[in-house]
Amino acid sequence: MTEPTFKLARRMSRLRASEIREILKVTARPEVISFAGGLPAPELFPVEELIEVSTAVLRQQGGSALQYSTSEGDPRLRAAIADHMRHCLGATVQPDDILITSGSQQGLDLTGKLLLDEGDEVLCESPTYLGAIQAFNAYLPSYIDVPTDDDGMDLDALDTCLARARRARFIYVIPDFQNPSGRCWSLERRKGLLELARRYRVPVIEDAPYSELRFHGEPIPSLRALDDGTSVVFLGTFSKILCPGLRIGWLVAPPPLLERYVLAKQGADLHTSTVSQAQLAAYLDRYDLEQRLENVRETYRHRRDVMVRALEAELPAGAHITRPDGGLFLWLELPDRIDSRSILERCLKANVAAVPGGSFFPNGGHENTMRLCFASMPPERIIEGVRRLARVLREAMDGRPNPAARCHRPNRSDQAERLGD
Amino acid sequence: MTEPTFKLARRMSRLRASEIREILKVTARPEVISFAGGLPAPELFPVEELIEVSTAVLRQQGGSALQYSTSEGDPRLRAAIADHMRHCLGATVQPDDILITSGSQQGLDLTGKLLLDEGDEVLCESPTYLGAIQAFNAYLPSYIDVPTDDDGMDLDALDTCLARARRARFIYVIPDFQNPSGRCWSLERRKGLLELARRYRVPVIEDAPYSELRFHGEPIPSLRALDDGTSVVFLGTFSKILCPGLRIGWLVAPPPLLERYVLAKQGADLHTSTVSQAQLAAYLDRYDLEQRLENVRETYRHRRDVMVRALEAELPAGAHITRPDGGLFLWLELPDRIDSRSILERCLKANVAAVPGGSFFPNGGHENTMRLCFASMPPERIIEGVRRLARVLREAMDGRPNPAARCHRPNRSDQAERLGD
Repeated sequence: MTEPTFKLARRMSRLRASEIREILKVTARPEVISFAGGLPAPELFPVEELIEVSTAVLRQQGGSALQYSTSEGDPRLRAAIADHMRHCLGATVQPDDILITSGSQQGLDLTGKLLLDEGDEVLCESPTYLGAIQAFNAYLPSYIDVPTDDDGMDLDALDTCLARARRARFIYVIPDFQNPSGRCWSLERRKGLLELARRYRVPVIEDAPYSELRFHGEPIPSLRALDDGTSVVFLGTFSKILCPGLRIGWLVAPPPLLERYVLAKQGADLHTSTVSQAQLAAYLDRYDLEQRLENVRETYRHRRDVMVRALEAELPAGAHITRPDGGLFLWLELPDRIDSRSILERCLKANVAAVPGGSFFPNGGHENTMRLCFASMPPERIIEGVRRLARVLREAMDGRPNPAARCHRPNRSDQAERLGD
Repeated sequence: MTEPTFKLARRMSRLRASEIREILKVTARPEVISFAGGLPAPELFPVEELIEVSTAVLRQQGGSALQYSTSEGDPRLRAAIADHMRHCLGATVQPDDILITSGSQQGLDLTGKLLLDEGDEVLCESPTYLGAIQAFNAYLPSYIDVPTDDDGMDLDALDTCLARARRARFIYVIPDFQNPSGRCWSLERRKGLLELARRYRVPVIEDAPYSELRFHGEPIPSLRALDDGTSVVFLGTFSKILCPGLRIGWLVAPPPLLERYVLAKQGADLHTSTVSQAQLAAYLDRYDLEQRLENVRETYRHRRDVMVRALEAELPAGAHITRPDGGLFLWLELPDRIDSRSILERCLKANVAAVPGGSFFPNGGHENTMRLCFASMPPERIIEGVRRLARVLREAMDGRPNPAARCHRPNRSDQAERLGD
């Protein structure tokens, strides 16, 4: 008798392994200096504090901390997140507007599940976050990637795209220190985006994992803070500001839509870990997250400085980098003729890794780009890694070290410099 | 300017709030004796042990326990689960065959995502698990509910259904102490199911949350244990044998399919909590799960006995119950003319709750049934709750107490009794 056949649903043809996660497997060797992952620095994770709150929660709540709980999430955690959004993100939301998710990746998956039928259109930045493409792909949309510069989406181009779109369902953006580019939208562009969203009646999904990680300058209000609460779904996460291993994120949506998110969450995994939510709520109650964030920002700011300086010193002419004011990533653009996938192969031989940028463009192209994470490695490893990377690039580009590689400074266009060249 | 419109995907028309979770909200009042939820008894959760392993894992592994990890899951946990399946479930699987999921509910959602296009057919028991219907509904299948008796699916009926089905994608079953009916499939039916699955080349999804909770008698091998590893996807969970609040389950699938599950998991939430997985692996390493299970089984067996005895004493003639040999639930069948939704309304006024059975039939009908969980309440509350329930039923059925209500004993057909009547 023959074996049964597992016939895959059509959507599975769109699901591919994340290039990043495949690279991460290769880069697990300790001799590799990896700028590939988007890993926050584990030495900053609050290990002792979590031991304390884990014990306290289990002692105080006993079995109920280990029981099933509501799909919406722990009321204390939802209240603490509303506080956090008020103090840290300038947005007024009610605890009842919040759904706790299993990381903000789940927020992306649920968003696709709620809003996308096959062939519907998602407008996004160019480049955009790879994990969002992966999540949305399961619902078989097409993508309209809108030209984007250092201040955000080109609003004229967005206007044209929206006018031409036939089944635009939402505009997906990461306004603060975007993954992968490190770009941060200007206030003007944010306001313009919301205006276009209202004019065309197309809502906005604001993905904000890095918003709290600004290294200097005044915060720019989130889209959710600028909106009247009707146009924007906001996705937040503790992965970058506390630690990713807990897998706790949240989303804020207008009330009737939030109810639908809760239903979809219920079908997907019932609810997020009761005990992890209780531990996080206790952590936020007992410790000062803002004080912790000072330390995180300071560490990442220094690492960004080290990486940017090293790249400026080592990169060959013709290579451009962004200099983000926050987040974890910077973006490298190489001459058109250079294929960053072959660069990666050479890099791995030289024991350094970064992510080829092509994956971040849902409609392909831009193979001459790379994403570098400056947050995971200590400064001396960053310097050595950049040295290895630059050697590979110089060989590939047949150039010499350039003490002043071209440098974009996103969101500081008044200071934009084009060094060298 | 008008507000943007969140246009919902078509699949959302199929997602409804779980009736059970809605009832649970009402029954949070302490005066209500609830047989509605499928809640394991929290006094059995290993609180002290989890305090110990939480602390140990964070002390020993530090930040890495809080970092991102692989989508497949913690290798130590996967190895421990392979051991558990060998010792407790009689199935030989390799750690690499296992994917860690965020509860087995996620296993159901991923199964729908992988295998169901709109209009595809799912064959299932009648009744079947409500949470599975909720998970699959997002992928817009139709259901063929196969007549089922106390020994499992009627195999002649299954044969006919498979012969007639045009787009059968899988057969979904809960062979051990099914939710909601408490039924356990006979060995003969299990073998027959696998034979039909191979003949028609339609695979089987085996959902096994209660398999370890057998109160007496010899375990019957799981479908995965009887299969050669090609026909069955097995879903397991720690929710009922340890505690549900951790949200950790697993699935076992043939290798090429497992890779697809991993991809779908990656898009859905990247991975399950790193620290929860490490804690669970440490728990399974340090403590004897089998010994713990003895205590869990003993507690639930006693509660089942108490509930069955109370029902036998109190139920009016015309009400039938199952007497399960394991799990958490028993099933109540009332005369056809009785609508269990109106019974529930009266029950809530009398401060007792159970779940109307209609929700467990994907194609409707069977409104004269109810699911009762005997596991959550201590014996004296069970007795009082049954008294309240029986009073409501007697009023509704206009009958008198019957010291020997009809009683089905699933899986013990040789002993089947029809008392009274």
